[in-house]
Amino acid sequence: MSKITITPISGYPEWTPGVRMQEQRLIDVIKRQYELFGFTSIETPAVERLEVLTAKGGMHRQIFTLGRLTEDEGGETLGMHFDLTVPLARYVAQRSNDLVFPFRRYQIQKVWRGERAQRGRFREFYQCDIDIIGRKTLSVIQDAEIVAVIDSTLSAIREITDGALPNHKIHLNHRKILSALFAALKIDEAKSADVLREIDKMSRDGKDATKDRLKELGVSQSAVETIMALTSSKELDEARQLLASIKADDEGINEMSQVLENALQLGVPRSNIVLGFGIARGLDYYTGTVFETLIDGKEKWGSICSGGRYDDLASYFTTQKFPGVGVSIGLSRLFDLMVQSKIITIDCHTPTKVLVTAQDRENYLTDYLGLAKTLRDAGINTEVFLDHLPLRDQMAYASKKGIPIAIIAGGDELSENAVLIKDLNHVTQEKISTGEMVRYIKRKLQSEPAA
Amino acid sequence: MSKITITPISGYPEWTPGVRMQEQRLIDVIKRQYELFGFTSIETPAVERLEVLTAKGGMHRQIFTLGRLTEDEGGETLGMHFDLTVPLARYVAQRSNDLVFPFRRYQIQKVWRGERAQRGRFREFYQCDIDIIGRKTLSVIQDAEIVAVIDSTLSAIREITDGALPNHKIHLNHRKILSALFAALKIDEAKSADVLREIDKMSRDGKDATKDRLKELGVSQSAVETIMALTSSKELDEARQLLASIKADDEGINEMSQVLENALQLGVPRSNIVLGFGIARGLDYYTGTVFETLIDGKEKWGSICSGGRYDDLASYFTTQKFPGVGVSIGLSRLFDLMVQSKIITIDCHTPTKVLVTAQDRENYLTDYLGLAKTLRDAGINTEVFLDHLPLRDQMAYASKKGIPIAIIAGGDELSENAVLIKDLNHVTQEKISTGEMVRYIKRKLQSEPAA
Repeated sequence: MSKITITPISGYPEWTPGVRMQEQRLIDVIKRQYELFGFTSIETPAVERLEVLTAKGGMHRQIFTLGRLTEDEGGETLGMHFDLTVPLARYVAQRSNDLVFPFRRYQIQKVWRGERAQRGRFREFYQCDIDIIGRKTLSVIQDAEIVAVIDSTLSAIREITDGALPNHKIHLNHRKILSALFAALKIDEAKSADVLREIDKMSRDGKDATKDRLKELGVSQSAVETIMALTSSKELDEARQLLASIKADDEGINEMSQVLENALQLGVPRSNIVLGFGIARGLDYYTGTVFETLIDGKEKWGSICSGGRYDDLASYFTTQKFPGVGVSIGLSRLFDLMVQSKIITIDCHTPTKVLVTAQDRENYLTDYLGLAKTLRDAGINTEVFLDHLPLRDQMAYASKKGIPIAIIAGGDELSENAVLIKDLNHVTQEKISTGEMVRYIKRKLQSEPAA
Repeated sequence: MSKITITPISGYPEWTPGVRMQEQRLIDVIKRQYELFGFTSIETPAVERLEVLTAKGGMHRQIFTLGRLTEDEGGETLGMHFDLTVPLARYVAQRSNDLVFPFRRYQIQKVWRGERAQRGRFREFYQCDIDIIGRKTLSVIQDAEIVAVIDSTLSAIREITDGALPNHKIHLNHRKILSALFAALKIDEAKSADVLREIDKMSRDGKDATKDRLKELGVSQSAVETIMALTSSKELDEARQLLASIKADDEGINEMSQVLENALQLGVPRSNIVLGFGIARGLDYYTGTVFETLIDGKEKWGSICSGGRYDDLASYFTTQKFPGVGVSIGLSRLFDLMVQSKIITIDCHTPTKVLVTAQDRENYLTDYLGLAKTLRDAGINTEVFLDHLPLRDQMAYASKKGIPIAIIAGGDELSENAVLIKDLNHVTQEKISTGEMVRYIKRKLQSEPAA
């Protein structure tokens, strides 16, 4: 039979078992943190109607549609979801009577995008979203809760890497601050989009280039100076005074002040928060607070957790108003960063903690299976070696998989109701009675570093 | 703005938060059991090349292909995976150098099939697969391990339903038993496929109808009697004698005997195993042991966990030989059975354990946020109520979500460094000092039934 050549498809990450174990661990930590803040899991189908997916527009080129190899059934035109926000909007509009508001949901699922594959960009990848959705109103203090859950989650991830993942900075801005600035400077809406674009490029192109371009856009010299002063500022009071000096509306700065203050009350260190009045990205979409999160020293990877406040989640689907605030951790990007930066080390390829070897399978198979049952009944992840191979090969199997403990028992040991317990990390070995075996192994595993 | 009408798409299950919590719990139990037996998680992209998906054939009509709304890029023709076995075969063939054999993997992912939606059949659904893959050889005792992990997993699921899920029966057959029977009875390969089909329909159509049809197929009277005797038997010894009496090959019956014996050693109760020599389904695909699993009294739902032994997993992709054995729990079907049969009860819609209410938000918001931080730091899932609503409405929110504990604190309590802790299940309330709060709540939650 001729064989099909396997050609990997780019943009669709797939991991060997050891790497996958670490990815799973990362997902577990994120879930745990989201639940600690009272977010509840939902899952939506990967498939939505195209009219739902295209409602907001803008993603047309990236949507994967579903077809059939056989004749089409007609009627349903479906596509793969490209984010978890559109499905959330559909879910909330459809099920608002079944939900209790404020609705705190998290959603950890893969999404699909027909993007050009490159570093940090995939065609199938995980997003880990949290959102708090109100009905009609939603307190601005919920924005502070979002800052707290981002901070707590990234700190918990850092903890499982034993500090190898550097600290993070949560950058905050507020949609209404730049709007108030532009209004006070009499920059009209059409021009303000261009101004925003220049501000967004400032960190790349430098201040002088930005100033020149703003002037080319017809912004006055004094207005340019004010824009540069605000977007360079990192201090709330400074920004507040600057806005007051030009009699700009202070709603945005007041809300940002509340978010900051309450985030500190919720335990977020001030040093983990950066006020960035120059963050322009996402301002066209969000209506209040805007979040971006960068890993210290890894700023080139971009924001690994972004989001913000929106006035009306489900406006395409319902006349009911659902204001919300949320962020998404780009898990695949964060994990890729961690793997590429060697923050994650792989020394284990299995959840198995104990390998029951079969030194003399012909005579003692029943005993080996019985030992495995005893260990599993005690909640210890266990394998039995069942192939006919020398003990040396069985131990090599345990080493290669990263199994920390092996049990060795031949006729001598078993006739004494004992087993040899080999610690593969420390290359020690002890003879232990079968009655003591579970307790001994549990003690040993507790002193192991977590896999 | 005109609104998009949301029309649910049939065959794509989606749950409200309370139901989803139970589904998640079920997945966690299955993962835990799979890992207890030393299976390691892998995940493959939902998307594979069409030539991979269609290699084995037979699923042509059910495959969803991926397209784009914009002009096609050409080149790659991709589809959604319809099971987890084809991706496993591709994964093992592609990565055999990175894997340690026997390779024990589990895979819990959604799959997509263009089937007509009906009860127990979905277009997007979860499969929970385990397989043990050898390189060149694989001990038949691994088949007994599969029986043990099925039994252990279903028992663990029963436990979290407090026994509401009935017991299960694992039905075993072996490909080579019926082959040996047909060979001894001189039924050729072409006819044996028809005979198998009649055997498969026997439980529906009755023995008499089957006998008649077998005779119509040209099977002799005495051969029909032998077939009926074997397929009706539930005893290994009886089947063995019957096969011996017609001088049939005994390899199949010997292997089945080994699987049964070793499964018992691994702790599977004999009463949970049914020998079913008449199980014909899957025999065309598998080469040794065949498994099906039925829930007592829910036999009409069909097998919720099926699988078997195959000689050569990846024959379409490589000349290397990878024998394997595995099963798949049809999680979506099992979960649907549990929901429809009211085995799962939903009384909780959030992981939140404590709601910090805000009786006097104007004056004490800082304290409420501080209490939430203290509880979260202690690992207790906590929400703070942040909307301006009367305490009555805040308590109603906790009740509706199924949050078991509420903290109430006004100026009186806070000036004494105390809070009122309300137990919403028992409608009791106690004043506790803030220093004792965490310990008191942890004790209370331990005595709660698990959500």
